Amino acid sequence: MTGTAERSWWGWGTTDRALGDDECAATAALLPGLPDRPRPVPTLSDLALPASRLSPPSSLPLSGSVPDRARHTYGKAYRDVVRALSGELAGAPDAVAFPRDERDVVDVLDWAGSAGVVVVPFGGGSSVVGGVEYRGERPWVSLDLTGLDRVLEVDPVSRAARIQAGALGPVLEDQLRPHDLTLRHFPQSFQFSTLGGWLATRAGGHYATLHTHIDDLVESMRVVTPAGVSQSWRLPGSGAGPSPDRLFLGSEGTLGVITEAWMRLQGRPRFKASASVTFREAGAALDAVRTIAQSGLHPANCRLLDPGEAELAGTSTGEWVLVLGVESAAHPVANRLDQLTDLARGCGGAVADGGRDAGGVGGGDTAADTWRTAFLRMPYVRDGLARMSAIVETFETACTWDRVAELYATVGAEVGAAVREVTGGPGRITCRFTHVYPDGAAPYFTVVATGRPGSEVAMWDEVKTATMETLGRLGATITHHHAVGRNHRPGYDRQRPEPFAVALRAAKAALDPAGLLNPGVLIDAV
Amino acid sequence: MTGTAERSWWGWGTTDRALGDDECAATAALLPGLPDRPRPVPTLSDLALPASRLSPPSSLPLSGSVPDRARHTYGKAYRDVVRALSGELAGAPDAVAFPRDERDVVDVLDWAGSAGVVVVPFGGGSSVVGGVEYRGERPWVSLDLTGLDRVLEVDPVSRAARIQAGALGPVLEDQLRPHDLTLRHFPQSFQFSTLGGWLATRAGGHYATLHTHIDDLVESMRVVTPAGVSQSWRLPGSGAGPSPDRLFLGSEGTLGVITEAWMRLQGRPRFKASASVTFREAGAALDAVRTIAQSGLHPANCRLLDPGEAELAGTSTGEWVLVLGVESAAHPVANRLDQLTDLARGCGGAVADGGRDAGGVGGGDTAADTWRTAFLRMPYVRDGLARMSAIVETFETACTWDRVAELYATVGAEVGAAVREVTGGPGRITCRFTHVYPDGAAPYFTVVATGRPGSEVAMWDEVKTATMETLGRLGATITHHHAVGRNHRPGYDRQRPEPFAVALRAAKAALDPAGLLNPGVLIDAV
Repeated sequence: MTGTAERSWWGWGTTDRALGDDECAATAALLPGLPDRPRPVPTLSDLALPASRLSPPSSLPLSGSVPDRARHTYGKAYRDVVRALSGELAGAPDAVAFPRDERDVVDVLDWAGSAGVVVVPFGGGSSVVGGVEYRGERPWVSLDLTGLDRVLEVDPVSRAARIQAGALGPVLEDQLRPHDLTLRHFPQSFQFSTLGGWLATRAGGHYATLHTHIDDLVESMRVVTPAGVSQSWRLPGSGAGPSPDRLFLGSEGTLGVITEAWMRLQGRPRFKASASVTFREAGAALDAVRTIAQSGLHPANCRLLDPGEAELAGTSTGEWVLVLGVESAAHPVANRLDQLTDLARGCGGAVADGGRDAGGVGGGDTAADTWRTAFLRMPYVRDGLARMSAIVETFETACTWDRVAELYATVGAEVGAAVREVTGGPGRITCRFTHVYPDGAAPYFTVVATGRPGSEVAMWDEVKTATMETLGRLGATITHHHAVGRNHRPGYDRQRPEPFAVALRAAKAALDPAGLLNPGVLIDAV
Repeated sequence: MTGTAERSWWGWGTTDRALGDDECAATAALLPGLPDRPRPVPTLSDLALPASRLSPPSSLPLSGSVPDRARHTYGKAYRDVVRALSGELAGAPDAVAFPRDERDVVDVLDWAGSAGVVVVPFGGGSSVVGGVEYRGERPWVSLDLTGLDRVLEVDPVSRAARIQAGALGPVLEDQLRPHDLTLRHFPQSFQFSTLGGWLATRAGGHYATLHTHIDDLVESMRVVTPAGVSQSWRLPGSGAGPSPDRLFLGSEGTLGVITEAWMRLQGRPRFKASASVTFREAGAALDAVRTIAQSGLHPANCRLLDPGEAELAGTSTGEWVLVLGVESAAHPVANRLDQLTDLARGCGGAVADGGRDAGGVGGGDTAADTWRTAFLRMPYVRDGLARMSAIVETFETACTWDRVAELYATVGAEVGAAVREVTGGPGRITCRFTHVYPDGAAPYFTVVATGRPGSEVAMWDEVKTATMETLGRLGATITHHHAVGRNHRPGYDRQRPEPFAVALRAAKAALDPAGLLNPGVLIDAV
């Protein structure tokens, strides 16, 4: 899937899928007040980067080349894309490390510790929360793990595999396919993010219910810390003390560098069925999704789009759209889809004509496919709009059902007000619900508004501040699956219980006494 | 369910269910070389306890009475029961605290911190791993949380409740019943253990698949630590840093005292169906269970008994017995049971005559009920046998499927050899599989052997040492759901990754700098 297409140094994904100048201009027509033509993309060879402050030993796999450093300066948040497009690369890493094996990782950390160099782990670089840049004054190295990309062992009986952390989604799935097994973890960033990145950020994946996060798919982990290598045992379940893996899951490179993990796999689904259901009112749509989430039927897909989001996805007419999908490697699933659509109908939904595919072997993805195509295209559209000085960004959260309707309405009102305040226009705020639980849901918002050339980042940051204030006041998490990074620190600092912060800081100080690892993310060293 | 029956101070459960002297003698007939009559149970009022070393302020809810101190000296492991029966109570707590609310908990910790007194949290006192005693030299207080026993709030929309940690199983279920909701967490100790105990020890519950541990049912937790009160947010899911709750889950009273939690509830099941399936060979039985665990059908019950265990449960004839149960609050389940029994048949199983109940509303527990009655009776039988100087104890573990058959055989051989070595006779080692996963299973072993009066504890400890050696060598967890406590420390110290131990010690030192909380459990303070 990655094929040979070149990765974009400044934007999402591969260069062959980026919007051309005319497409940028055409897409931007949906917003008033934007320039006529997109800003140009700087040429990589023309970039002026500060001189590297490091002279590492030549035995280490480090590169100081301008292209490598430019590619590893930022993640792929909207503010990262705009800064890269502006040629604003003063914070570039002094070097990029490309370890070929775990020994190299240990050597880089050892050297960094003795040289006082900051190390920021970098998987696919798709962070949208400022997780892979560095905002301090020390010399720093971006540690690119993608050289560790192999499936090392497969246990077909337990359906598990030992996989190196730097494997990108398609790279690891290609190695699992001959065994007729799959990890089946498909975040939107699937092609451009790694197993280690998913683990470090508690990524959200394919499943809209039940096993929503990568956490549930972990059997054991291997983590290189400055205090030694942590290797947990392969276990299907355990009650032996607090879970070691759960401390490293979500640690975002602050406690150690994940080098490999035993992951739980699944048979490739043979049976699939899907349907889309429309609703006229938010109340009915949310009731239906809650009823489904509490039914124990565990649909693989259960994504609810509000009318604006449905329009962005190109499939709607002012109604809410619920995309349902069920799948199984073992059993026909049409009956389960019927039970699900019955529940949706009972809450006032209408099963869309042509939106149902009863599936059977290999079938069943009509509605889901339409949605997925739009879904995978979205980040490229965002980049095209960014070139037109539009503000385009997403944020996501989760809260319990008793507050979901209020959250949806309040975010619409308050973030809408912030957008008007900052941009002078109404913008668009749309929402989809990406993951649902018996006790709550995870809404995912998209904001599109008219920016002023040169002020886009400052404008978005103001909107983001308002967003964090709203979510925090409503007790909704600062992130359901995008991670904390640097961008979400104010919200995370508010959410995290203080005694837990005390414990986490102490753990960090013990494992990383020199404070090498990704400083600024999650917590500040004592 | 607890009713007004008196709790046994030395053994399991309530005194009215304890075996009488004649029953003890009759049950012991299955083993050779035991005394003719059971040893007497010491009278509580005759016990000689060391004088309390404490003079706490009278404002604190502390008791120094002999009955209170005797009841809080031990948990309910076999070695605890034998020591209590022997009147061996030199390690009794100096006092027992009975907080009525969280303020009392804070006050007790504050006083203990200033007075240098150790605090051991005590829920129902059903620990079988030495989790609620103290083996050091400092004065100590047992902190009995059962006064905090209320359901404080119910959120019927999100199906969740805020429950105080000291509520025993039946006490909290009684308060949820009027809302037609249930926590549906039924460990074997259900009647005699508390929510806080389940959380602190990562208890295993009702479900044999999917949500096997209490961990999955937690929405948020409140924990009093010496460094402050930790309150996590109510969230259905989150990716904001490492999970704060997962640090306290399994912390076994070493990091703080859990005072309440928001727990995820469920509708009370209306549809149930069950079946029992027999197998002639271990290989076929394990294949069937693995196939079921990997099918995605998520049976509520999926307990496999080996021939010896089936005989103990009174339901078998030299075959392996698989008890399957499905349930739902929302949908008929007979079809799912058919799919499960088809899978079992495909692996060579025979669906037992009369062992199938297709269920429907309110039905379906025939096979499960038989098994459950025997299951709940087991600890009382153990106590009766303990009075006859038999050695009777259980241990449990988990490993991935590639090693399950080997583990079963090796434990049988090596622990059998240890039993012969220690007791001079063969004893009985039986096994059931209590929880199963797509990637592995959790076997639960019972050992019954002839002990020598006065040496029972030492004899069991020798067998236990051999057990831990075998499990550790095979990479099987030291505990799947019984916790670590003090008894499992050697196995846990071997299993726990050293960098995680470093982090956990640092967290402990930061949250509990005076080392008040349950010292000796999980980790030693630095």
